[in-house]
Amino acid sequence: MEAVTAYFKEDRLAQLLGVQLVEVGKGRAKTRLVLQDSHMNAAHMVHGGAIFTLAACAFFAAANSHGTLALGINASVTFLKAVRGGELIAEAVENSVNPRLGSYTVTVHTAEGELIATFQGLAYRRPERQVGRRA
Amino acid sequence: MEAVTAYFKEDRLAQLLGVQLVEVGKGRAKTRLVLQDSHMNAAHMVHGGAIFTLAACAFFAAANSHGTLALGINASVTFLKAVRGGELIAEAVENSVNPRLGSYTVTVHTAEGELIATFQGLAYRRPERQVGRRA
Amino acid sequence: MEAVTAYFKEDRLAQLLGVQLVEVGKGRAKTRLVLQDSHMNAAHMVHGGAIFTLAACAFFAAANSHGTLALGINASVTFLKAVRGGELIAEAVENSVNPRLGSYTVTVHTAEGELIATFQGLAYRRPERQVGRRA
Amino acid sequence: MEAVTAYFKEDRLAQLLGVQLVEVGKGRAKTRLVLQDSHMNAAHMVHGGAIFTLAACAFFAAANSHGTLALGINASVTFLKAVRGGELIAEAVENSVNPRLGSYTVTVHTAEGELIATFQGLAYRRPERQVGRRA
Repeated sequence: MEAVTAYFKEDRLAQLLGVQLVEVGKGRAKTRLVLQDSHMNAAHMVHGGAIFTLAACAFFAAANSHGTLALGINASVTFLKAVRGGELIAEAVENSVNPRLGSYTVTVHTAEGELIATFQGLAYRRPERQVGRRA
Repeated sequence: MEAVTAYFKEDRLAQLLGVQLVEVGKGRAKTRLVLQDSHMNAAHMVHGGAIFTLAACAFFAAANSHGTLALGINASVTFLKAVRGGELIAEAVENSVNPRLGSYTVTVHTAEGELIATFQGLAYRRPERQVGRRA
Repeated sequence: MEAVTAYFKEDRLAQLLGVQLVEVGKGRAKTRLVLQDSHMNAAHMVHGGAIFTLAACAFFAAANSHGTLALGINASVTFLKAVRGGELIAEAVENSVNPRLGSYTVTVHTAEGELIATFQGLAYRRPERQVGRRA
Repeated sequence: MEAVTAYFKEDRLAQLLGVQLVEVGKGRAKTRLVLQDSHMNAAHMVHGGAIFTLAACAFFAAANSHGTLALGINASVTFLKAVRGGELIAEAVENSVNPRLGSYTVTVHTAEGELIATFQGLAYRRPERQVGRRA
């Protein structure tokens, strides 16, 4: 898992928003975001783009946890509840994986456990490339 | 459209990433993002979260263009091509709208017109609330 | 739950395909499909439309289990594995529900428990209408 | 295009529902469904599963139009308007295609041109297999 943790440190958008990688294991990952004003939309709720990015980071970490480079090709997100502050946690689990494709479900919840969003991500795997090695 | 333009100026995540609202009309909007290092993922490609946020901003502007507050409840995005720099443009068009729901398709392309992502967004409208007025 | 069970008996597409409602409870439902030649696509695998219909029936039953009429407005499905025969089971669980919207996750698996598809459904609820009562 | 037309004739679920392939060209296809009682859900509206299957058939035909076998791996559908009869037409267009993946947008409308549903489909292509040839 060290390769994924090191790899995640190069995620520049995660840094910009403040997304933290809390845990990663084979086919699973957890990310965390302490909400700031800069994550809000014009209606003063957490922006869908911030929730998506948090979930996508968990998805990417889980998808890359096997050491093979995996790229997100599709994602569907449902926003269940508006949030205005506190922190959010995203947990990704692997539904299935084969040499070329991996499917992940991510749930986003508050520290109190309230469900905020559900996310389904599909990754395309490139078995010829290792995580963190440049082509 | 002035209400939407003013409203968008309060979008803090758009400011953080540098998403600009280029155009807005009834049921349509265009946003733009000049790509920076801070938009990249660990594979040195534009992060799915940045593409999503750009598309979501066009979706939100189009969905709120009728003056009624509209909140994103679902979005599905397909990432078609990796991008490493330059600028991205998102264009949202309205598929349908009724008092409670609005459906939008957003395409994201480069300045040269190459298609990067497609996005479908569904908004829940709150007819009792106007854009930019606090409850 | 009797209202939902009776309601499901009027689902004509479910009858055409042979989708059975196995169980229904508050916010959850299970459906089953014994695969026939008529469920196949041209590649002699189970058609995505058959898997979707099976999952959608579980989604509809779960969404209507509270007695309020609920209509599907969005669904996203990922097909994980090709199937050529046997039977499929779909299980829907409720992620969240409020007066207007309900969100459901459905998993489709074989009798042996192998995951075939994941499905996310979003329903629009019409509190003024009861399940099984005509407007 | 003859290979796709011949291939579609083996689609057993399309036959069960009565889905017709009206047109197919490189990266595009049109399908049609004359609505019957057997396509309805328990609320006496056209079942989401029938609309999905109609759209999926257009998606599959467009995705297989290049002669390389393509399998649907993800689809997202938004249901915009309830329909109770008449006929539906689905039109698929290709957003992008590369050796392994193809992305398609399908719109479903009535004979009068009213938009009923939008659909996004993602296909996984198997360059080593030709359409209509068994492995």
